[in-house]
Amino acid sequence: MDKIQQDLFITTVLSNWELAVKRASKVFDSYNDEEILLPIAAGKNRVVYLLGHLTAVHDRMLPLLGLGERQYPQLDDLFISNPDNAATALPPIQELRSHWMATNALLTEKLSAWTPGEWLERHTAVSAEDFAKEPYRNKLNIVLNRTGHLSYHLGQLALLKK
Amino acid sequence: MDKIQQDLFITTVLSNWELAVKRASKVFDSYNDEEILLPIAAGKNRVVYLLGHLTAVHDRMLPLLGLGERQYPQLDDLFISNPDNAATALPPIQELRSHWMATNALLTEKLSAWTPGEWLERHTAVSAEDFAKEPYRNKLNIVLNRTGHLSYHLGQLALLKK
Repeated sequence: MDKIQQDLFITTVLSNWELAVKRASKVFDSYNDEEILLPIAAGKNRVVYLLGHLTAVHDRMLPLLGLGERQYPQLDDLFISNPDNAATALPPIQELRSHWMATNALLTEKLSAWTPGEWLERHTAVSAEDFAKEPYRNKLNIVLNRTGHLSYHLGQLALLKK
Repeated sequence: MDKIQQDLFITTVLSNWELAVKRASKVFDSYNDEEILLPIAAGKNRVVYLLGHLTAVHDRMLPLLGLGERQYPQLDDLFISNPDNAATALPPIQELRSHWMATNALLTEKLSAWTPGEWLERHTAVSAEDFAKEPYRNKLNIVLNRTGHLSYHLGQLALLKK
């Protein structure tokens, strides 16, 4: 694999990540601040919960991938540690929307700057010992996994047709 | 990127595909032939429809990736061209289950045999002219895209908790 092929491999992975982010942003943008409180199906998570959940999960990618400190750790309590609950007060919706856009822009900028070798480095949730035995537990794996996680929730969001 | 790194890149992509397939198989196996007729949510696709749909989409990957003829083109009419309809007769469920397992086993076997260069070849739905301009429209892109498509429907299947 020459340099051009390496770059193509990475561009293809990155474009799949960017496409999934773009699709999700389009869905979130299609709901106004009232509609975003609708559940994706009866008794299931609200759209706003998935917005907060995906933002928190993507924000967690920063330290996991060695890209820096988290920006919005306060989201975890509402959107990761606890299930959706309409009785709990939410942060302002516009703030959540803005965090979603900012975290993805930051991540995509940083991923775009990686060398091929950096994609294959270990992520911070695996020890050096375990990584020596399981080298597929690398940063590429995290990006592929989180792209899949985003697609998973995109499928759920698609159930609530506008 | 040396040979070991190239192989690692591909192993990581392939393991994400295999993991998504494994998760879906586990979900389908968790429903018996009656339960599989349940919708994922009120008024939405039945589990069996997603089983047939995903099998047809994966079967279509064979010609798209230059891996040979389709095995189950008869699935398209029921599971791709038309929406789910409980009034339409289905093929035997056991046959659908067996096609799902067989098509994924065949695909995974063939993908595992590709060289790095083959992952970056054009797929058959893009012309040589367009591919020259858009080289990311390669076989890797199809595999990443279909892994995402599978995750999309896995998210929907997760709404129907057993």
